[in-house]
Amino acid sequence: MIRISIDAMGGDHGPEVTLPGLLRVAERRPDARFVLFGREDAVRPVLDRLPDLKAISDFTHCDVAVRMDDKPSQALRQGRWKSSMWKAIEAVKTGEADACISAGNTGALMAMSKFCLRTMADIERPAIAAIWPTIRGESIVLDVGATIGADAQQLVDFAILGAAMANALFDVERPTVGLLNVGVEEIKGQEEVKEAGRMLREAALDSMHYHGFVEGDDIGKGTVDVVVTEGFAGNIALKSAEGTARQIAEYLREAMNQTFLARLGYLLAHGAFQRLREKMDVRKINGGVFLGLRGIVVKSHGGADEEGFAAAVELGYEMVKSGVFDRTRATLDLYHARKPAALAGSAVSHT
Amino acid sequence: MIRISIDAMGGDHGPEVTLPGLLRVAERRPDARFVLFGREDAVRPVLDRLPDLKAISDFTHCDVAVRMDDKPSQALRQGRWKSSMWKAIEAVKTGEADACISAGNTGALMAMSKFCLRTMADIERPAIAAIWPTIRGESIVLDVGATIGADAQQLVDFAILGAAMANALFDVERPTVGLLNVGVEEIKGQEEVKEAGRMLREAALDSMHYHGFVEGDDIGKGTVDVVVTEGFAGNIALKSAEGTARQIAEYLREAMNQTFLARLGYLLAHGAFQRLREKMDVRKINGGVFLGLRGIVVKSHGGADEEGFAAAVELGYEMVKSGVFDRTRATLDLYHARKPAALAGSAVSHT
Repeated sequence: MIRISIDAMGGDHGPEVTLPGLLRVAERRPDARFVLFGREDAVRPVLDRLPDLKAISDFTHCDVAVRMDDKPSQALRQGRWKSSMWKAIEAVKTGEADACISAGNTGALMAMSKFCLRTMADIERPAIAAIWPTIRGESIVLDVGATIGADAQQLVDFAILGAAMANALFDVERPTVGLLNVGVEEIKGQEEVKEAGRMLREAALDSMHYHGFVEGDDIGKGTVDVVVTEGFAGNIALKSAEGTARQIAEYLREAMNQTFLARLGYLLAHGAFQRLREKMDVRKINGGVFLGLRGIVVKSHGGADEEGFAAAVELGYEMVKSGVFDRTRATLDLYHARKPAALAGSAVSHT
Repeated sequence: MIRISIDAMGGDHGPEVTLPGLLRVAERRPDARFVLFGREDAVRPVLDRLPDLKAISDFTHCDVAVRMDDKPSQALRQGRWKSSMWKAIEAVKTGEADACISAGNTGALMAMSKFCLRTMADIERPAIAAIWPTIRGESIVLDVGATIGADAQQLVDFAILGAAMANALFDVERPTVGLLNVGVEEIKGQEEVKEAGRMLREAALDSMHYHGFVEGDDIGKGTVDVVVTEGFAGNIALKSAEGTARQIAEYLREAMNQTFLARLGYLLAHGAFQRLREKMDVRKINGGVFLGLRGIVVKSHGGADEEGFAAAVELGYEMVKSGVFDRTRATLDLYHARKPAALAGSAVSHT
């Protein structure tokens, strides 16, 4: 049985979308159980309409719901200890749930998750990992926006976190890991990336195969299983790619509507377009996973529909089922035990 | 008459591609004249086959050709004063040409351009500007990789340079300008972007309309005419978008080949697919413009074919024809004359 706590109020549509989404998960994953948090007046009516979901869920009323446009500091001030978002995260901390899913605002969810769960030992800053569809299948890209800037050690930590996730979700023994960089050599700056490369090469971890630097177009090619970068560039890469996909879909729609022959061709090739649409369907890859915390939190897109929200919940479910957490812990322990720095200078801070 | 100097040796294919590319330009722009630099044994045979091009070109032999994998420092050491790349750039400095085009390696071209032409007064670092196709038309994105990291003043300079280019190329009176940022508020770091936003708002320049922050997916939407960012994030945004476009083209090709009906539909909708292909044709938007130097230099993609190289040359042609250079100079003078800092602290360094 896998228990998942849900901030039912999160997202642009709240319980009207999140709850039917959960029902879809329940149909596909019979051992899933839900712990719901939200306002009684908003959640109860929807839950009453869905008896199959009600039967496998616990519901707790919360007065406060974090708004989508609340600033993280504001959300913490007003929603700590009592909002549906906080309660859902807290359920992971207390062991009431194995993972927490929210479609609420990213900044608030990250701030509360850090405050409530705290980071894993040896991890200074959490990352948000996205699953990125590629020509070869899927890759993991992190960080896509949790923190701006990262030093070499943090990039190495992200590599370890991402590799553990790839290992668990994609079932690859030693996932390949690349550091996102620009192609031009001898360029000023980004010393952190070069230093992280040296560290990863020296560490020669069993849990991954360090590939070297990759460029922006390597992500979609699927050159590596895990692409590591700091949050500013990662977020911009993700959103640029999403923007391009939408742009091409728009071009395609226009082109197929322009002439009678095109429309006829479109009808005949309908099945093919359907498959293409499925490949490009962002709903199916919905969910940013917060890595590096003492518990699993998945952020669903705020505008996700039922199927999109279900995908995010299933991502959390898979993370639990595949034991990502323990694998990550094991690699981190191994890395930090072997690391010369841990034996020398920073031993104090790690004990 | 517009005179363009060409590093005929640049690119993966050298004169076999660059020269036929120039012939295409000559056919479309009758007032274009060329100043060619390259090795006699490589250029002369091709030029002899193209009498129409020969008639409007001057050719100068150069012993050295910068290789595609030379490091910038190596290229400078071995190719300064004498390589075809250097000579082509130098022709702009001496006034022999109005703009220089090379498909040679980016790092070397930038290093030589900086060394030979130097930056404009008040501009500390040059930027590479890319023309990005959007749903609304085209936008300019800079910097896409000239320099890693940029402080607030440099971002403001990029905004002025990009706006002048948009004003000239797109014929917009006051181009809209956005600073690339991540969506999450109250996030650590990237103070430079926030500070640049404050500076642009205060400056209230007549030459642009400062829109505010934009995110990665705003680029493809065409939310603003000019997107400003530092080179690391800009390069990664550009390459991620290119990668996504190629990935979707690959999906589409696969989908249309899978069944008989799909293939039939594809045949019927052939014209529509053709239009789509043209829209997605990276050749048509080939060319990274070096901005902020005392002369116009355009970098063509190394792998560009004849049409791709021609597009880069025509971009240089348009830059000259539209008077980008003088417009930029005028805006810079105005900005730096009005800037309080110029009157106070930094007056010494600017006189």
